[in-house]
Amino acid sequence: MDAVTEDTVTDLAVQRWGTAHDPRTGEVLTALIRHLHDFAREVRLTEAEWMAAVQWLTRTGQISDDKREEFILASDVLGLSMLVVQLNHDLDPGATPATVLGPFHIDGSPELGFGEDMSQGLPGAPLYLSGTVRALDGTPVGGAVLDVWQADEDGAYEAQLPVDEARLRAKYTTRPDGSYCVRTIAPKGYAIPMDGPVGELIAQTAISHYRPAHVHVLVDVPGFHPLVTHLFREGAEYLDSDVVFGTKPELVVAFTERGPGPTPDGGRSDVAWLDARFDVVLQPA
Amino acid sequence: MDAVTEDTVTDLAVQRWGTAHDPRTGEVLTALIRHLHDFAREVRLTEAEWMAAVQWLTRTGQISDDKREEFILASDVLGLSMLVVQLNHDLDPGATPATVLGPFHIDGSPELGFGEDMSQGLPGAPLYLSGTVRALDGTPVGGAVLDVWQADEDGAYEAQLPVDEARLRAKYTTRPDGSYCVRTIAPKGYAIPMDGPVGELIAQTAISHYRPAHVHVLVDVPGFHPLVTHLFREGAEYLDSDVVFGTKPELVVAFTERGPGPTPDGGRSDVAWLDARFDVVLQPA
Repeated sequence: MDAVTEDTVTDLAVQRWGTAHDPRTGEVLTALIRHLHDFAREVRLTEAEWMAAVQWLTRTGQISDDKREEFILASDVLGLSMLVVQLNHDLDPGATPATVLGPFHIDGSPELGFGEDMSQGLPGAPLYLSGTVRALDGTPVGGAVLDVWQADEDGAYEAQLPVDEARLRAKYTTRPDGSYCVRTIAPKGYAIPMDGPVGELIAQTAISHYRPAHVHVLVDVPGFHPLVTHLFREGAEYLDSDVVFGTKPELVVAFTERGPGPTPDGGRSDVAWLDARFDVVLQPA
Repeated sequence: MDAVTEDTVTDLAVQRWGTAHDPRTGEVLTALIRHLHDFAREVRLTEAEWMAAVQWLTRTGQISDDKREEFILASDVLGLSMLVVQLNHDLDPGATPATVLGPFHIDGSPELGFGEDMSQGLPGAPLYLSGTVRALDGTPVGGAVLDVWQADEDGAYEAQLPVDEARLRAKYTTRPDGSYCVRTIAPKGYAIPMDGPVGELIAQTAISHYRPAHVHVLVDVPGFHPLVTHLFREGAEYLDSDVVFGTKPELVVAFTERGPGPTPDGGRSDVAWLDARFDVVLQPA
């Protein structure tokens, strides 16, 4: 019989899980075991703390559903999501950098035309977000689909609301010259959900639980490295303390105030509006 | 704005979570972040693997309920539970060693007298488990409560069955001379639940998903280090491959076959029975 001690249990567990049929599964699980055990040994984890962790993990799973992804939020606030983004998107400095997906993306958003409004009368300052999508070498990328989503003025995403139809999310396709134009409302900064296990942890620290105002953009074009990113409003609150570590200087965009007059979609606005210009640069796969 | 990169995100996250109001909380969470990030960096965790982990964790919480504790099982099969036991019960070699609690303990078991039967007519080989509880220096410990629980002949615990009353669990109090006598049925080896996320992982390896035959014993006496342990049947299958790493040579007990005749509770058995003797040695707190 194996003598299971503080010193031997890790090697025994690594030996066992190293029998995974798929080598990568074995690599990942045995590394996880080593690091988890090192953590427990380093802090001399008590049984009460271990039980609190078991209960926290259980509650985190149980508060999750089709629309709420509390484990993604947990990964986000611990900086793990952003680390995984960095590990998987080591892009050219000339390419638009990636940031976290976040827990609120919904598949299958409606397809809207150039400059069509995805805010459908919701309150907020009118915003036109426009620019081009191009390759690192400057070639325009026509036919690229920008999957765009954001929170409303109260900081709520569709996924957090009891609504049945698409709300502040849409897909926009670039024209042959790579140009796109999103019509929406200006996003606002917001608090992450604080009524669950993640909020419970944050409340035990001095961490700010806010995110700066941003619009999410996902661009997945064949032949290019897929891009998941945000565009942040320049000067927004919380840019220096984003609770999910998602901000990058390259993703901060000026929202310029314009009076009534011509808009980037070729039309006119009768009211004041915000003009945000951003060129997306994709890295070839 | 902080430049969030693969190299800086860990320090940024550690700085933030280091603001925890309680220093121990800060110590544990920042260590967890460092080790989790080291893990992700070491294996270059992909986004698909990260998402698979998020979904696995969510399912593990969701399959758990009042009676099923899938995260405890996960901790058990990864060797983490046994490591935490070792970290917290660094006992004198003369004391009865600790092992894992497991996910099936239920509070509030009925109190039975010396030699009373906790198997209540369930099928199985009659077993008398008897001995004394004493301190490291040999002093008998009278009035000690042994909280005992085990699986039935099919390997099922009460927590896994739709039953309303206590089943194969009871509390026995030692007599003034430290003696105790449990009347039950011989435990059998069994498979851990394979119909959930933990089983899903095990099925991807060559790991045996069985536990050797054992009875759980919890002894928590004021003035002594609390003891959570098992007694394993000598010669049982799976003693060398316990899926939760719980076996220890000191906890293996001979189950001696006896014919009809006197039993350790001072009575008589008309049928053959098994005689298991084990002295519990408690370490002063």
